[in-house]
Amino acid sequence: MTLAEMLAAFATAPVTADAQMRRFVGFSLADWAAVGLAGVDEPVARAARQMAQEDSGGLGVAAVIGGGRAAARAAALANGATSHALDYDDTHFLHIGHPSVAVIPAALAVAEAQGASGADFLDALTVGLETACRVGAWLGRSHYEAGFHQTGTSGAFGAAAAAGRLLGLDRATMAQALALTATRAAGLKSQFGTMGKPLNAGFAAETGVTAALLAQAGAESAPLAIEGAQGFGPTHAGSALDDAFAGLGTEWVFPGISYKFHACCHGLHAMLEAVGSLMPLDPDHISRVRIRTQPRWLDVCNQAAPETGLQAKFSYRLTAAMRLAGVDTAALASYSAETAARPDLIALRDRVEVIGDRALRDTEAVVTIDSGTGSVTARHDLAGRLAPELIETRLRAKAVSLLGAGRAEALWQAARALPDVPDMARFSALLGSPG
Amino acid sequence: MTLAEMLAAFATAPVTADAQMRRFVGFSLADWAAVGLAGVDEPVARAARQMAQEDSGGLGVAAVIGGGRAAARAAALANGATSHALDYDDTHFLHIGHPSVAVIPAALAVAEAQGASGADFLDALTVGLETACRVGAWLGRSHYEAGFHQTGTSGAFGAAAAAGRLLGLDRATMAQALALTATRAAGLKSQFGTMGKPLNAGFAAETGVTAALLAQAGAESAPLAIEGAQGFGPTHAGSALDDAFAGLGTEWVFPGISYKFHACCHGLHAMLEAVGSLMPLDPDHISRVRIRTQPRWLDVCNQAAPETGLQAKFSYRLTAAMRLAGVDTAALASYSAETAARPDLIALRDRVEVIGDRALRDTEAVVTIDSGTGSVTARHDLAGRLAPELIETRLRAKAVSLLGAGRAEALWQAARALPDVPDMARFSALLGSPG
Repeated sequence: MTLAEMLAAFATAPVTADAQMRRFVGFSLADWAAVGLAGVDEPVARAARQMAQEDSGGLGVAAVIGGGRAAARAAALANGATSHALDYDDTHFLHIGHPSVAVIPAALAVAEAQGASGADFLDALTVGLETACRVGAWLGRSHYEAGFHQTGTSGAFGAAAAAGRLLGLDRATMAQALALTATRAAGLKSQFGTMGKPLNAGFAAETGVTAALLAQAGAESAPLAIEGAQGFGPTHAGSALDDAFAGLGTEWVFPGISYKFHACCHGLHAMLEAVGSLMPLDPDHISRVRIRTQPRWLDVCNQAAPETGLQAKFSYRLTAAMRLAGVDTAALASYSAETAARPDLIALRDRVEVIGDRALRDTEAVVTIDSGTGSVTARHDLAGRLAPELIETRLRAKAVSLLGAGRAEALWQAARALPDVPDMARFSALLGSPG
Repeated sequence: MTLAEMLAAFATAPVTADAQMRRFVGFSLADWAAVGLAGVDEPVARAARQMAQEDSGGLGVAAVIGGGRAAARAAALANGATSHALDYDDTHFLHIGHPSVAVIPAALAVAEAQGASGADFLDALTVGLETACRVGAWLGRSHYEAGFHQTGTSGAFGAAAAAGRLLGLDRATMAQALALTATRAAGLKSQFGTMGKPLNAGFAAETGVTAALLAQAGAESAPLAIEGAQGFGPTHAGSALDDAFAGLGTEWVFPGISYKFHACCHGLHAMLEAVGSLMPLDPDHISRVRIRTQPRWLDVCNQAAPETGLQAKFSYRLTAAMRLAGVDTAALASYSAETAARPDLIALRDRVEVIGDRALRDTEAVVTIDSGTGSVTARHDLAGRLAPELIETRLRAKAVSLLGAGRAEALWQAARALPDVPDMARFSALLGSPG
């Protein structure tokens, strides 16, 4: 059996996902929508919406986040770029990338075009997200280090699986869609720090929709297009890890997904979690804060005295002070020149010391806080799993921080209602709303 | 200056092309249209049209070859795939691929959307075709041998240059379009023999339009996206040939383009040209035909006794007999089971001998024909340049073979009128006509 056939068998079979998988798909969907809506005014989101508008003349079958409608493929592209614009979406370390921003836009565009039910949409996400993670793991670290961006590459395979399922492709046709994806998938890591990074997510989403539509229309590809001689993996420094597909269809790797709860550099998150676990503490009584972190972060996010909002997003000292003072680190608006200039935060910031510690992993941080009542220490490792109940609580709080309570609640309710609704209308309408 | 900036300076400057360059652009355009119209019933053309229809809902700003309209990007994709469906379009050996099928569909879609004049469209083709050839040469043989298909990869850069010029991008914005192309261009040679090959051309055309529209809308990319560390060239086994861009803007490499004059395997073309140069000969008096060819072709196109139309396209013996008997080897319909079964052709075919000769290049053939009046010999090398007047005569004859005299003449007249017409309407209307 070829790799395309094996993945097609998985993507077209009845979905046997366990309750945990389904729960995490729901979390990712709601978080994706909140982050996407929060990103609509980013320059890359505006550019992608304008491109979709130019391409489709304002007509189309699918909603564009931030308003308007477009052709299915253009909507997938725009929504992928918009939802990755803030880099605040979910991450899967096995996948080595961001699965939701490629898979969800592809599935949503096709679900709208097809008039699919909410349940069918969720099933498509389930197989698409799992496919993206498995293919990302199969491509492996060598692919990433050679310069490829799994969000764009393995993301396209997940997007094709999700789009193809919603089109009702049979197994052989789904295999063609996945094989066609092999000659279309792309995305370079050298785009990081530019709009090319979020666009890679949009391109992946569009590639999936395109390949699925072409296969549905009868297009055929090379059977060994993914793993064969000069297939996608061999031409793109793929690791071809044998066990990447172990248990596919019975075991689910996607629930290992990580969510971002703070709107700042990922290197600060373990520290912010450790600080949070020590709260509440009265800032006025704090005499000293010591942060231990893996030394590689010291070049990345250790701005000692930030002055701008962007600098604030890369500052151990200021974000620790913000968290201790009760500033919402999940809200984008918290990272501002005004925040950086607040005298009380500067006073607290100047009592924070940052220490590199090679004994720590780069997902870990140790924080020690001295106050009038003594010294307390907490350690946090982002690689640890959180209880689903806690994740939900925190994702809902994040959505409130990003969108306000009313829109956040409407979004979570619409996502929660999907298993029982006949179409995507209510959910999609929230994405286009002006806020 | 970055590579994107250098190419952008070329693509946005006044076009200084010499008369020969402009003449070959016209040849390629007319040949592209004839080959595209001849391919509309190929399965990949049908699939691509259906995809464009599904995506755009039958509405759109650009004509689709074979009928209908679509969004600009979908039309570019469909027209690229359709025009490469027969593998009968032009080839550039320095580019290592087929420039017209990527560049022309991108330019045409944007020209229609913009209401561009014929002269502006031709200028855009001029810079786009030259860009595709230069980038293809820069990527070089190592890129091709690693498994990448220049038609899809360097074609996308040419398509972006042409599309961006028609959008009126300034130099800095054009550089962004070309840099964005770096993270989107793709195409694998392992798709050869499947519909993925013509689709690579369509994907390249679409990539160019997408990147140009995104750049116009304000999207920005990494300055060194093409040549920098982990840019497109380094991540795709590019040769980075220093002299690939020598003389850009003053010297034109595109006129080295090769056209196909026979609707069969390229390995047979040198032989068919050599045979043609010896004609007329009375088939009844031919006692023996000896064909010398590079031995690598003997595994490719040496079907001794073909029975189907497809087998006929890969047969030295039968196509030599067809040519000697006056069968039109430029016409698709000539390659059929009926032709293969004609007793007179079989009798002639059985007097043909095929001999491998390592002294010949793979673009060469030597043919010796014995008849009642003695023995004659001719050698032909496809690498030799034909006089432009001869190319035009033969391309017009090819168009007549493919489309009939009336449509062929209308197409050539419409192409020839382009420098003086205010828009693309007349030319585009011919592409959508039912024939």
